[in-house]
Amino acid sequence: MLIRVAEPDDWPAIWSFFQPIAAAGETYCYDRHITSNEAMAMWFVEPPGRTVVAVDNQGAVIGSAKAYRNQGGPGSHVASASFMVDPGHGGQGVGRALGEHVVEWARSEGYRAMQFNAVVETNTRAVALWRSLGFDVLTTVPEAFDHPTAGLVGLHIMYRRL
Amino acid sequence: MLIRVAEPDDWPAIWSFFQPIAAAGETYCYDRHITSNEAMAMWFVEPPGRTVVAVDNQGAVIGSAKAYRNQGGPGSHVASASFMVDPGHGGQGVGRALGEHVVEWARSEGYRAMQFNAVVETNTRAVALWRSLGFDVLTTVPEAFDHPTAGLVGLHIMYRRL
Repeated sequence: MLIRVAEPDDWPAIWSFFQPIAAAGETYCYDRHITSNEAMAMWFVEPPGRTVVAVDNQGAVIGSAKAYRNQGGPGSHVASASFMVDPGHGGQGVGRALGEHVVEWARSEGYRAMQFNAVVETNTRAVALWRSLGFDVLTTVPEAFDHPTAGLVGLHIMYRRL
Repeated sequence: MLIRVAEPDDWPAIWSFFQPIAAAGETYCYDRHITSNEAMAMWFVEPPGRTVVAVDNQGAVIGSAKAYRNQGGPGSHVASASFMVDPGHGGQGVGRALGEHVVEWARSEGYRAMQFNAVVETNTRAVALWRSLGFDVLTTVPEAFDHPTAGLVGLHIMYRRL
């Protein structure tokens, strides 16, 4: 697996898993009917942010991540990030590799910490992954996510120093 | 004091206190060198958000607030908001009036809760105001704000149900 900076040409491959993940409405605070153009504009971030893809041995895009400043101005030394993995390649360490890459990148850029603002508490696989990468749950915003089957569930705010 | 929807013509008056507040770098996660155009584009939000101004008896704009969805999609039932008061009119209840207005508006729009993501912990006047309006500190992100004199201080995440 290779992780490299995302190019606009990677978008169709990212969208092929982004769209069904957004439509399912189980794990992200994105409009379930988000369009390809809206999603691409949101996913590709400008410096000092960074958007990357994970590519398998055949050159196929199997995951993506973006990292960016969580706040501006006097808050811009804390990064945030978002991740998506092709469900057809789940359980292969793609999310972990992207997470490790993004943490290392943010540290090298001089960010002092990383904060996730909206980790759905029922997304236990993601929560366990971030915990294993050193993130703690600072708080859980109650009933902040309307899950299609579980109803109103909490959003974890997760954090680690870099 | 009157609170009404902000018009583009209100911007010069808002900017007259927005600019020095941003430049001071003590209370907001805005670039201290933000331009008028950047600030206006960020401050005027589209529906389902709302930007308002507080106007005194002489018709002068003495404060402003914006309210908006804190997250999209399955998280869009939680609102957030930002507030600015002309320091020349501090201690006159402008912030409280704007806060009460925004809370009522968000409730009437069907939002279930309101969350502030970045209340600077040294901004004790704002913290006390939000507490008096029913907000609690869910957590404090450590050292997430680089204050010009106090150094790295925490950012409170504050929350109340509506």
